[in-house]
Amino acid sequence: MKRILLVNGPNLNLLGTREPEIYGSDTLKDVERLVIRVAKEYGIDVRAVQSNHEGELLDAIHEARHDCSAIIINPAGLTHTSVVLRDALAGVPLPFAEIHISNVFAREEFRHHSFLSPLAEFVITGAGIQGYEFAVRRIAGLLAR
Amino acid sequence: MKRILLVNGPNLNLLGTREPEIYGSDTLKDVERLVIRVAKEYGIDVRAVQSNHEGELLDAIHEARHDCSAIIINPAGLTHTSVVLRDALAGVPLPFAEIHISNVFAREEFRHHSFLSPLAEFVITGAGIQGYEFAVRRIAGLLAR
Amino acid sequence: MKRILLVNGPNLNLLGTREPEIYGSDTLKDVERLVIRVAKEYGIDVRAVQSNHEGELLDAIHEARHDCSAIIINPAGLTHTSVVLRDALAGVPLPFAEIHISNVFAREEFRHHSFLSPLAEFVITGAGIQGYEFAVRRIAGLLAR
Amino acid sequence: MKRILLVNGPNLNLLGTREPEIYGSDTLKDVERLVIRVAKEYGIDVRAVQSNHEGELLDAIHEARHDCSAIIINPAGLTHTSVVLRDALAGVPLPFAEIHISNVFAREEFRHHSFLSPLAEFVITGAGIQGYEFAVRRIAGLLAR
Amino acid sequence: MKRILLVNGPNLNLLGTREPEIYGSDTLKDVERLVIRVAKEYGIDVRAVQSNHEGELLDAIHEARHDCSAIIINPAGLTHTSVVLRDALAGVPLPFAEIHISNVFAREEFRHHSFLSPLAEFVITGAGIQGYEFAVRRIAGLLAR
Amino acid sequence: MKRILLVNGPNLNLLGTREPEIYGSDTLKDVERLVIRVAKEYGIDVRAVQSNHEGELLDAIHEARHDCSAIIINPAGLTHTSVVLRDALAGVPLPFAEIHISNVFAREEFRHHSFLSPLAEFVITGAGIQGYEFAVRRIAGLLAR
Amino acid sequence: MKRILLVNGPNLNLLGTREPEIYGSDTLKDVERLVIRVAKEYGIDVRAVQSNHEGELLDAIHEARHDCSAIIINPAGLTHTSVVLRDALAGVPLPFAEIHISNVFAREEFRHHSFLSPLAEFVITGAGIQGYEFAVRRIAGLLAR
Amino acid sequence: MKRILLVNGPNLNLLGTREPEIYGSDTLKDVERLVIRVAKEYGIDVRAVQSNHEGELLDAIHEARHDCSAIIINPAGLTHTSVVLRDALAGVPLPFAEIHISNVFAREEFRHHSFLSPLAEFVITGAGIQGYEFAVRRIAGLLAR
Amino acid sequence: MKRILLVNGPNLNLLGTREPEIYGSDTLKDVERLVIRVAKEYGIDVRAVQSNHEGELLDAIHEARHDCSAIIINPAGLTHTSVVLRDALAGVPLPFAEIHISNVFAREEFRHHSFLSPLAEFVITGAGIQGYEFAVRRIAGLLAR
Amino acid sequence: MKRILLVNGPNLNLLGTREPEIYGSDTLKDVERLVIRVAKEYGIDVRAVQSNHEGELLDAIHEARHDCSAIIINPAGLTHTSVVLRDALAGVPLPFAEIHISNVFAREEFRHHSFLSPLAEFVITGAGIQGYEFAVRRIAGLLAR
Amino acid sequence: MKRILLVNGPNLNLLGTREPEIYGSDTLKDVERLVIRVAKEYGIDVRAVQSNHEGELLDAIHEARHDCSAIIINPAGLTHTSVVLRDALAGVPLPFAEIHISNVFAREEFRHHSFLSPLAEFVITGAGIQGYEFAVRRIAGLLAR
Amino acid sequence: MKRILLVNGPNLNLLGTREPEIYGSDTLKDVERLVIRVAKEYGIDVRAVQSNHEGELLDAIHEARHDCSAIIINPAGLTHTSVVLRDALAGVPLPFAEIHISNVFAREEFRHHSFLSPLAEFVITGAGIQGYEFAVRRIAGLLAR
Repeated sequence: MKRILLVNGPNLNLLGTREPEIYGSDTLKDVERLVIRVAKEYGIDVRAVQSNHEGELLDAIHEARHDCSAIIINPAGLTHTSVVLRDALAGVPLPFAEIHISNVFAREEFRHHSFLSPLAEFVITGAGIQGYEFAVRRIAGLLAR
Repeated sequence: MKRILLVNGPNLNLLGTREPEIYGSDTLKDVERLVIRVAKEYGIDVRAVQSNHEGELLDAIHEARHDCSAIIINPAGLTHTSVVLRDALAGVPLPFAEIHISNVFAREEFRHHSFLSPLAEFVITGAGIQGYEFAVRRIAGLLAR
Repeated sequence: MKRILLVNGPNLNLLGTREPEIYGSDTLKDVERLVIRVAKEYGIDVRAVQSNHEGELLDAIHEARHDCSAIIINPAGLTHTSVVLRDALAGVPLPFAEIHISNVFAREEFRHHSFLSPLAEFVITGAGIQGYEFAVRRIAGLLAR
Repeated sequence: MKRILLVNGPNLNLLGTREPEIYGSDTLKDVERLVIRVAKEYGIDVRAVQSNHEGELLDAIHEARHDCSAIIINPAGLTHTSVVLRDALAGVPLPFAEIHISNVFAREEFRHHSFLSPLAEFVITGAGIQGYEFAVRRIAGLLAR
Repeated sequence: MKRILLVNGPNLNLLGTREPEIYGSDTLKDVERLVIRVAKEYGIDVRAVQSNHEGELLDAIHEARHDCSAIIINPAGLTHTSVVLRDALAGVPLPFAEIHISNVFAREEFRHHSFLSPLAEFVITGAGIQGYEFAVRRIAGLLAR
Repeated sequence: MKRILLVNGPNLNLLGTREPEIYGSDTLKDVERLVIRVAKEYGIDVRAVQSNHEGELLDAIHEARHDCSAIIINPAGLTHTSVVLRDALAGVPLPFAEIHISNVFAREEFRHHSFLSPLAEFVITGAGIQGYEFAVRRIAGLLAR
Repeated sequence: MKRILLVNGPNLNLLGTREPEIYGSDTLKDVERLVIRVAKEYGIDVRAVQSNHEGELLDAIHEARHDCSAIIINPAGLTHTSVVLRDALAGVPLPFAEIHISNVFAREEFRHHSFLSPLAEFVITGAGIQGYEFAVRRIAGLLAR
Repeated sequence: MKRILLVNGPNLNLLGTREPEIYGSDTLKDVERLVIRVAKEYGIDVRAVQSNHEGELLDAIHEARHDCSAIIINPAGLTHTSVVLRDALAGVPLPFAEIHISNVFAREEFRHHSFLSPLAEFVITGAGIQGYEFAVRRIAGLLAR
Repeated sequence: MKRILLVNGPNLNLLGTREPEIYGSDTLKDVERLVIRVAKEYGIDVRAVQSNHEGELLDAIHEARHDCSAIIINPAGLTHTSVVLRDALAGVPLPFAEIHISNVFAREEFRHHSFLSPLAEFVITGAGIQGYEFAVRRIAGLLAR
Repeated sequence: MKRILLVNGPNLNLLGTREPEIYGSDTLKDVERLVIRVAKEYGIDVRAVQSNHEGELLDAIHEARHDCSAIIINPAGLTHTSVVLRDALAGVPLPFAEIHISNVFAREEFRHHSFLSPLAEFVITGAGIQGYEFAVRRIAGLLAR
Repeated sequence: MKRILLVNGPNLNLLGTREPEIYGSDTLKDVERLVIRVAKEYGIDVRAVQSNHEGELLDAIHEARHDCSAIIINPAGLTHTSVVLRDALAGVPLPFAEIHISNVFAREEFRHHSFLSPLAEFVITGAGIQGYEFAVRRIAGLLAR
Repeated sequence: MKRILLVNGPNLNLLGTREPEIYGSDTLKDVERLVIRVAKEYGIDVRAVQSNHEGELLDAIHEARHDCSAIIINPAGLTHTSVVLRDALAGVPLPFAEIHISNVFAREEFRHHSFLSPLAEFVITGAGIQGYEFAVRRIAGLLAR
């Protein structure tokens, strides 16, 4: 059975409570449930991780090498600053999708650059938590090829 | 009945023939058929326009004001250079989605900046023509609110 | 009889309907009527053109060479991006005025640079449609020298 | 009775003698007489100040708070360097017009940026001393609203 | 009873031993004792955390949401690089003070930019550990309003 | 029989009349006649297009795909601003030569960058209309290989 | 008896009246009274100067050399532009504190750089007029060493 | 007995498996064995740490203060982004060597800047895992002085 | 009889007391005496002005128009920031020499740019007060032509 | 009899052996023979120099002043770095052509700027050694005027 | 028998006498003796060249093509400015090592960029003359593969 | 007897013939004679060198170490590009003066930066060949201390 690693970066545990006018009212739990439910449609398993610790995200990505087929990641604030996250994703031969719940291009200048995007399979920005749903569907298609 | 304006920018008439290693083998016709088919699921009509003439794109966007509820646009090379396209979209009070078939962030530096993204409802990059499908579904949801 | 070419750039056909908090409620028709009325005070004729097509603006400017004495242009979003518009104005030996209805310096950074201003006779920014009136009066004076 | 404060910045006392190929042959006296004459048409009084001392310009602007309704300022070389002038104008709740006699955009690069323009009601550049006349007429209209 | 979260960032455990010519001879213990003592004057409790792990700092800030009224943070080297720290502070609706023991503006260029300062209530730089004392007093006043 | 598409960009219809001190006194007609005559030496046909409309240039380039073997283009002011022109040339698998009549490197800074040059077979700058002649001869050689 | 020179830069005479949402409602008089009162606690005298004239601020700083032990300065808009103010402070061998009432880092980009900070003993930003109080207390401690 | 702290940064646990065309086929184990063996030649002990957690690297560096004489560090992706790592090394009075297995100067632009190099005793880039061997030999010499 | 205006900018009244390791121990009085003595050799009169008030420097330069033949100016910190000083010198048709006592190129980056140098007859930097002597001799020669 | 100086810069002695995929298989000898042969068609003599020593290129250019009418130069790597080469060409009143065998605009960023191009009569880039042929023909025409 | 070309750039003849606090007290002779001795261990011959003439360095590198297997180069000040040196090394199909005796990253900003590093096999910076020794050993290993 | 090394850089052999409107009509011979004559006044010998070969300039500077007390250098175009010239001057413990005959600050942007000025004793720019005379006099004074 195929498996997707779902990675949510720092501060996303606050989802639904933090700045709802930017991020909406869905919680991290909602996101994970959504991804699991949609993946199940395609017979795909999901392992979900969220951490405020960059190191734990790296460990999880490394581990995915052994038993996952793709990664969906919302790197949150690390998007703009973390070369080690980029290197972790480059070091693991799995396609990955980059998701941003809010439209980062409508926010501060420093949020317009991503260290991950050049390596991503695709990027969905500002589509709310539905972005995760689309990512699962797209990846399911890619894995089915 | 609601209607979406589907705008494909310059050179996209070549889709399927031009640089297929970047853009894939689907044609513009395929894109339009896909959008129409998915929109119909939601009872939404589609008006499709493609032009190599920036002015025609502006005219179409202006006109949409009268009888459309949302816009899906793949601005192609105009993404990075056209303030007038941005102004046209800002001047028409309709939500719009920005779609790029290829991952522009994996290409030349000058393709990393978009004049439209800060105003877009959401942006989907690198998901192939499936990006259009997701855009329809997302917009259908927004319009149903 | 002398003649002024009045050029209004892309999206200005939306004037009065588009973002009225920025551009006010006067329409393009109002602008053209105003210019014609004021020019008449000085015995000057007016030919008015508005287009969303850069190429049509160029054609009109080229044509002005034969039967106009000056140009009043609101280049709209082309201000910041169009070298060909600059070249058209440089290629036609007529003095021209650059008008912006809103105060572009109070808007996005990319609106602070104009490709036309270095070649303009004068620039009026943020004076609403009255800027056109002043332009006619100034040009009438220059032509009367 | 309404009153406009007319502020002319450093070196403008040389007007008419200094670099006439750039600034023309009208003197500061001519400018002030012109402004007074036009303002009178609208029943508006004028207080004129010119100084080479930034501090005196600030004092005059502060004072205007008590008995003026608007400011017309040609900030000369301070345009490009003076945050305190900007702060003075921001600190006094009066609309102001920014005037440049010559076309600063046709001159050195460092003259293309203004600390005042983003806060100005409108900006007139390169229209010679007629720019002052237009400023009075525009302000008269604004005050009559 | 009100409570302040005191956050000291990476390497501050070395305080008093590390580069004393820059940071002085007070230890982290001294800083915490000082903050507790001064806060007690105002009947305010203190929870102190120091960590070399960015993730632990985020966890602590998130937790503060439930039982603290304000945050005093010396972000150390993370000041200049951490968007996630900024996001954590933005995601928790508490006012915060940013403290730097040494004068960062007298040091390397890259220390002159802070990702936190735009969101901080106030910033005290170079006042040694007394900066923490002032921060408590200021915050006590803000909370008493 | 082989065919070259000759593309002359915006404002080049003014050739010979516009700023002759920069562009010389030859007209567009002269350029086209020259290219046709030289191409004939090599048994090569020529289709010539000039337009002030970027979109028409794109249409012509797209069409060339079907019946031309190479392109000679003087992109004029679009050189420095048009990503869509670059994309059109990249989307059509034909070698192309970039020609500038005047020495753009001796003019304004913004004319020193070309979006087309990195993709061009070769670039001739400042050789007057003789640059077109050389381009035909070079291309004839390349096609004969 | 020791003495502190208190310097308030251009426009600060408007304090309490100018943009109160940024600067609060305390007046310059309040600031000076506060500084005098707190300094008296430590047996320190205060000489207060405010001027809109950069030159007068320089004169006052030069004079301080003879009879003051430290300087507290709120340089206002000169912070970002005045090398001569920096030179005056460097030329007088007295420690100085830099105070900003509002949080300059939350305002325009050009307010994020200070010519004085690298030479300041310490900087307090955004703590309202209480920043002056802290400055006196810190300086009193430094002078008592 | 002297001791070297060997620090390998994030993702280096993947060594030998990750992108072998860039990093070669030696594993982290191989690197550590090599360093231990060469250090033993000089009668020097080695403590080896690798972590994907920046904080653990900082802790290890801090601890080295008590019982190590030098540090050899391959900071991996943190090279380009981590001020706190720089501060940790600056805060511990031990000489350190910076090692990169691949030639970072032949890779992406953002890998050309290192926050550590200005403080390093020496830097070896692109010499594969032999760079570690040279580092031990050089440090052994420095410690023997 | 010919006359040179000698202008010394802000803070130069401190000469000989301020940062002697940079500026030496000669006083402003010494500088003025030197210039007067050397000028007398050539039968040239000197009017000396020093001010901390930019406005007074402008006034003096304007006045020089009537009775001086050349200007020697040490603009001090205004060198790098004052467009109005540049404009004053440009507005007065007299040749001027720019003198810096210390080598500004060996100091902070912001001291490497001068607004005056492009207009100066010549510039002498770092030659101590002897730079003034050379300036007089050079100017005497120029005036004698 | 007229004479052209043919200058080939550093490393061009390797032509035909060095990176043939970039520079082709023609040798320096071939280039010189080609230029001589074509020049002879016009009755023009050629003096050819190639050197890896910038100084020798300068000497040759200086000497050309006495007995040459024009220069054809391929400045190779000096194109991007040598102000003295630019100055030598500016110091000798002869028209010159700048030739690059490969398309420098398709190579590294630092090869896109030329210190010579603004002074060149014309520039031919990427046309292989045929660029030299065209240069001779163009120059022959210019000399014949 | 294999041979290494050892290239020492401009000013390195001063080694041991010039700025010993930066470069140490070893002379160029010492460096060459060291390299010869270590190379002999591996049965490798050495040809050593030092020159202050960039052209001679190029000639030596070109010549190495015929009878050397690798190059060790300390490009000294040419590191940061010489494209022709880069081109010479690129034009000769030999691996090369780049050595800097001092830590260039701890020096002026302009020394942080190298035109050679992207092409180098490896780079050793700041390891004193021992860097040359390591280079020989590394290259010996590479050649033995 | 003391000796000054007089160094004139590339192209200065053309002095008096090259661009006289910029450099005047004095020849290199005149410059050398002037320097020798003035130096003799102070009992100082002169060795003069001019070369178009950077390497020869370096050799001359190195040699000066043995028998000269100071250097006067007009680095010409190398001013802006040569790190090795800077290193040669830094490597020789002699004070040096930097002379430019024309006002480089009134010329192209790239001439505004000098690699030498930060290390120079003093810099004289735009004073014609009299700059050399002043340099001798200043240096004579420095050597006499």
